[in-house]
Amino acid sequence: MGDLEIRPATTADVPAIVGMLADDALGAQCESPDDLTPYLTALDRLTADPNQHLVVAVREGRVVGTLQLTIIPGLSRMGATRSIVEGVRVHASERGSGLGTRLIEWAIATSRRENCQLVQLTSDATRTDAHRFYERLGFMPSHVGFKLQV
Amino acid sequence: MGDLEIRPATTADVPAIVGMLADDALGAQCESPDDLTPYLTALDRLTADPNQHLVVAVREGRVVGTLQLTIIPGLSRMGATRSIVEGVRVHASERGSGLGTRLIEWAIATSRRENCQLVQLTSDATRTDAHRFYERLGFMPSHVGFKLQV
Repeated sequence: MGDLEIRPATTADVPAIVGMLADDALGAQCESPDDLTPYLTALDRLTADPNQHLVVAVREGRVVGTLQLTIIPGLSRMGATRSIVEGVRVHASERGSGLGTRLIEWAIATSRRENCQLVQLTSDATRTDAHRFYERLGFMPSHVGFKLQV
Repeated sequence: MGDLEIRPATTADVPAIVGMLADDALGAQCESPDDLTPYLTALDRLTADPNQHLVVAVREGRVVGTLQLTIIPGLSRMGATRSIVEGVRVHASERGSGLGTRLIEWAIATSRRENCQLVQLTSDATRTDAHRFYERLGFMPSHVGFKLQV
């Protein structure tokens, strides 16, 4: 396979990102690939925020992965900065290729560069394959993740 | 008990906030109440960021609670904005007073005002009392929370 590049997402990447978000057992019913307007609005907001890093992984000119990293300063742990990983997606054609590992390694390296002391993420309790993947990368499943729709 | 006010944290609140962060079974060994410098630096960074809301609960002039709410735009779920609650602390003298509920209700109301569709938080797997508290407030323990120290 060709070289992989991980770079900030642009407007032109939005259709491919939304395609990957929708191609997911849990995400399918939450997305609207036929109307990209809300996604483009969200991308504008992310691009304007220096604490947000929405990236795509590109191989041979094709978007094959995505991830959102948010840098969060805070007071606890002696004023520690943490990062949160959201929206990790790997294109169906790339599963098992090590791309997920490359994306998370990118998130960890960027978090270090941004002086984070902690990288966090939550994973749906039903995604047991993902849990093994994160544990192999050194993440500890130490917390319960709660969500409330408002 | 007197009236309760929930308002943005200021420099003068930092000693009380750090006191509450340190007065915690899990947090005690992570804090340095004798040197507030890193906390004041973190507060400056939070205050400058419109997506950050570090608040204190004040009763009769005394800081008795704190919470950090972060607003996170994103592409998934049709460009949904979510919020993340971190660093919830209630002073020992106020436990059982309903202050925790008031703080979380403030976070939910603020999240709605900021057009969030989802409020998220993680809680250490050992804090079973906290888990019951969040479930009573409508939160679903649907996710596993992973952390990696970097």
